[in-house]
Amino acid sequence: MNIKMSSESDCEVQETQESDAAEGRNEEDIITVLVATDIHLGFEEQDPVRDQDTFETFEEILQIAADEQVDFILLGGDLFHHARPTPYCIYKCTELLRKYCLGDKPVEIEFLSDPARNFPTLENPRVNYEDPNLNVSIPVFSIHGNHDDPTGHKQISAIDLLATTGLINYFGKWNSYDYVEIEPILLRKGQTKLALYGLSHIKDERLGRLFLDKKVKMLAPDETADWFNLLVWHQNRATRGVKNFIPDDALPEFLDLVVWGHEHDCRIEPERRANGVFVSQPGSSVATSLAPGEAITKKVGILKVYKKTFMMTPVQLRTVRPFVFHEMVLKELNEMDAEDSGLTYSELTMQMVRDKIESMINEAKGLGRVERVSKKPLIRLNVKYRDEKQVFNAIRFGQSYLERVANPEDTVKCQGIKEPVGRQNKKKNNEAFDMPEILPNRVEDLVLTHFSENDSLTCLPVDPINEAVKKCIDSNDTEAPIIIVNHLIKETLQKLEEAMPEIEQVEAFLADLKASRNRDSANFVNQILNDPRRVRKRVGNNEQESDDNSDADDISAQIDDDDDAPSTSTKPATGPGSRGGRGSRGGRGSNSSRATRATRGRGRGRAK
Amino acid sequence: MNIKMSSESDCEVQETQESDAAEGRNEEDIITVLVATDIHLGFEEQDPVRDQDTFETFEEILQIAADEQVDFILLGGDLFHHARPTPYCIYKCTELLRKYCLGDKPVEIEFLSDPARNFPTLENPRVNYEDPNLNVSIPVFSIHGNHDDPTGHKQISAIDLLATTGLINYFGKWNSYDYVEIEPILLRKGQTKLALYGLSHIKDERLGRLFLDKKVKMLAPDETADWFNLLVWHQNRATRGVKNFIPDDALPEFLDLVVWGHEHDCRIEPERRANGVFVSQPGSSVATSLAPGEAITKKVGILKVYKKTFMMTPVQLRTVRPFVFHEMVLKELNEMDAEDSGLTYSELTMQMVRDKIESMINEAKGLGRVERVSKKPLIRLNVKYRDEKQVFNAIRFGQSYLERVANPEDTVKCQGIKEPVGRQNKKKNNEAFDMPEILPNRVEDLVLTHFSENDSLTCLPVDPINEAVKKCIDSNDTEAPIIIVNHLIKETLQKLEEAMPEIEQVEAFLADLKASRNRDSANFVNQILNDPRRVRKRVGNNEQESDDNSDADDISAQIDDDDDAPSTSTKPATGPGSRGGRGSRGGRGSNSSRATRATRGRGRGRAK
Repeated sequence: MNIKMSSESDCEVQETQESDAAEGRNEEDIITVLVATDIHLGFEEQDPVRDQDTFETFEEILQIAADEQVDFILLGGDLFHHARPTPYCIYKCTELLRKYCLGDKPVEIEFLSDPARNFPTLENPRVNYEDPNLNVSIPVFSIHGNHDDPTGHKQISAIDLLATTGLINYFGKWNSYDYVEIEPILLRKGQTKLALYGLSHIKDERLGRLFLDKKVKMLAPDETADWFNLLVWHQNRATRGVKNFIPDDALPEFLDLVVWGHEHDCRIEPERRANGVFVSQPGSSVATSLAPGEAITKKVGILKVYKKTFMMTPVQLRTVRPFVFHEMVLKELNEMDAEDSGLTYSELTMQMVRDKIESMINEAKGLGRVERVSKKPLIRLNVKYRDEKQVFNAIRFGQSYLERVANPEDTVKCQGIKEPVGRQNKKKNNEAFDMPEILPNRVEDLVLTHFSENDSLTCLPVDPINEAVKKCIDSNDTEAPIIIVNHLIKETLQKLEEAMPEIEQVEAFLADLKASRNRDSANFVNQILNDPRRVRKRVGNNEQESDDNSDADDISAQIDDDDDAPSTSTKPATGPGSRGGRGSRGGRGSNSSRATRATRGRGRGRAK
Repeated sequence: MNIKMSSESDCEVQETQESDAAEGRNEEDIITVLVATDIHLGFEEQDPVRDQDTFETFEEILQIAADEQVDFILLGGDLFHHARPTPYCIYKCTELLRKYCLGDKPVEIEFLSDPARNFPTLENPRVNYEDPNLNVSIPVFSIHGNHDDPTGHKQISAIDLLATTGLINYFGKWNSYDYVEIEPILLRKGQTKLALYGLSHIKDERLGRLFLDKKVKMLAPDETADWFNLLVWHQNRATRGVKNFIPDDALPEFLDLVVWGHEHDCRIEPERRANGVFVSQPGSSVATSLAPGEAITKKVGILKVYKKTFMMTPVQLRTVRPFVFHEMVLKELNEMDAEDSGLTYSELTMQMVRDKIESMINEAKGLGRVERVSKKPLIRLNVKYRDEKQVFNAIRFGQSYLERVANPEDTVKCQGIKEPVGRQNKKKNNEAFDMPEILPNRVEDLVLTHFSENDSLTCLPVDPINEAVKKCIDSNDTEAPIIIVNHLIKETLQKLEEAMPEIEQVEAFLADLKASRNRDSANFVNQILNDPRRVRKRVGNNEQESDDNSDADDISAQIDDDDDAPSTSTKPATGPGSRGGRGSRGGRGSNSSRATRATRGRGRGRAK
């Protein structure tokens, strides 16, 4: 049977591929893939209103895959929001996969590569649809993201749990810090041969460096040109922070398409990069932060591959809770007519804000599709003021929307506008909340910038501390920084005592020690944090961590404060945020975050 | 084909059944079941020596089931040691079940009852071998125990996770506190009809009361006498504590056999009770405490049922780590010849203890079967002394056995012998560690006894506090007591303020309030502890629980002290203990525990 590849509506095919794809093909030669990423199962599952959101949308995605009779589903990481999902979350996910991905529909793609190399963690390595004991109708292939990476005892990820049930084919797990070698899964359907390269989340900084050092290899099959080469990974796409980026020309030219996970704003229509590689960024299927990028319509893609050509058809998700984001800059006090109306400035502001929110709720209704009607929308209005007199209590204010908005507790956020201050001025005037004008929008960079600018650490190395801060945020391991700092102090003292250097050599000794720790920081931090004695204490014996705990609490309290910094809401819509829902990657001052957005130069449309 | 039912060696068939069972039967009419309980997967999984013990033995059990070509496996609860097992633990369990229980061997038992009633929690209720997408060779039927009961968000148990993958048929979950109604799974193979009644763990106190109130119903099928009626449950078998027992005649007479989970000492050979019901207590497959009962040889059973007759063949487990338990009472000082030898009393004692340990290590070798040879044994010697001069540091002493014993840290336990003191004397002399001579061997009973004897609570009700203490121990929820006490105080003050009773009515008012809380304590405590706001805080936001935490730490510290009380080691070998490995059910003083053992009158042999 012949099909026309461009027949679907709503489809934006990139120029060069269109002509090829538009021609008629035999369906037996076309590999059809449902592409989705960042489903974040379990996000807000304890919230009385939003608890089922992620599960409903995952079910919708699986239903689309079944309706479209895809050959397989490809997930780009962060299927789970928490590295250790609740039993309920695993339960729901398993139930849904079993319901939609098992059945009598035959799987028509041949598996040509060595499963022992593609799925090395399985007791009995094989692709799930070749297991004679399992009746798979839709195979799912997934990498892990930064939210569902391996953790804890024996480093088992939530995706491993699904892999061992046979419901998911988990690939692209990579452990070495020194190099990366990606061996593709080789699939064939009729005349189309697909090489599927997967790389689960790796720290961007590290991967970027490995790219620069030419230590990232993709082991393309012989006659690469005969294969459609598809990479899926889960990394920062934007230049986000001091060192955290993959150079634009890093992706090898032989790749035909990259499915880019981790970034939450939907840019699913493939974009051609300078070196000819197409990139499709499906975006998350749930808004995990109230950022403008998350208000972009959520979609998954139906990818059709025929030999070396492809077509991506975006499919709008209909179960996603409507989300409207706006920003409102208040007039200056002297422009406001408070005295005429007999209201205080604050009351006057509230009146304006209330009007605005009403219009946003209406806008949300306009977004409504059949399934959305009954869902209370997410509404976020950032109110920018110049004078404290205009401020009101946003939380109390939000209570009046309890029945109409899904997030009354943070519907409105008041943010002071400060006039831009030159960096030079700043440096002199070194106060607690004094931030560089263009702020790194990741806490790790903040740590790095802070210590490099002030150079305040003589004995202790910065990298392990920074690594620990990242752990603290990404894995919600709130004790990590204090444990690492304590360990470093102890270790330094101990080594000093052991070596007993002459007094004039102490400084050099310390510098050496510091440098060696900086070189090896990731390994070192992982080793300390995964120390079985610590893990053991954490499992079921929380009460024993008395002293450390109190320190850790202090630290985490500070981190929580960060959460209230004005600009988390204007950060780009990204997955990275922290587990447990703390905003962590946004800039801090409103100026800086606006500046960051501007320099990044990417359109972040509001929901229409 | 004819088989003789009593042909197996090593088999102790109870008198009345033997004649029937010994006759030849058609194999097509015989239902063969592997029976096991208390596998405690994940127990000591963080221990560098013992980490694989539970998984190896589980694999052995599954291998036996496969070798014996059983029709199904029946598990009596506590498959998992922790209510929220580590991802690794779930992963390993899934892997093993998939390896041994899926395959082409046809399942020959018909499922006759309504799966929607037997498995109400499944999205698509059916017994796993009737799922067309799963190729089941050995169905597993399991109830949950007190260790793997439903917990946390939406009350999902670890067994639920396996049930949703289709690897286990989870039955016997019961939620009501007011009555129990057990509807059996009805199975048939040829001429044999088996009604399988399951009851997952219920607080013994509650179940006992429901039995007394005649509120426990087993819904036997019509023509009950045609069915072999088999009950599996997970309860205290011994009278353990003030109210925690199931009356001896409570089990309905129509039952043919009860498989009794929860008790860890192996008494698998069926014992006939006064009312004619047979009870088989398989015991745990791993020693979760160093108690004498755990040193009894570990076995599972192969149960063969033909019409109304049955035969239980015990099968000794070969992968179980050898465990030798002994007690040693030191001679009085004047009988020891310290001065002659030039050694201190303490050194002299150590010498004797060392000799004893050597002989125990040899004894352990004698227990060795092929697979055991390479496993370091568990050794426990309780040393009873009369004079402090005989004491030595048992932990430091144990270090010398690091290479030869699996548990050097608690190989030796020194326990002072106090001369029995009359209860009357005790009461006058009311010190902190002053315990009644015959001590209730559950902490809850201690709480109850304490408050009822001293009657020191005027305003607060005892039952909810006690319930919370139990939660603290059973579920390792260390904050439970402080949360409940704080809540009760707040609530009492609030209600007083609201009602503002006249001064002379305050006492009556408080008494009423107290009584009402006592009536409803279990519901009340569950409600408070499962409050979504609290659960939410606990999931991923530990650092927010600053104040409560410190209180909880104090409490748990006290509980940890209990753990070191001398006699936990001589407590009966039972599963109940706490999660996370704290001994909690043992008596406290050595006298009392000996007394308890005596009154219980059950032989608890040492390993031979």
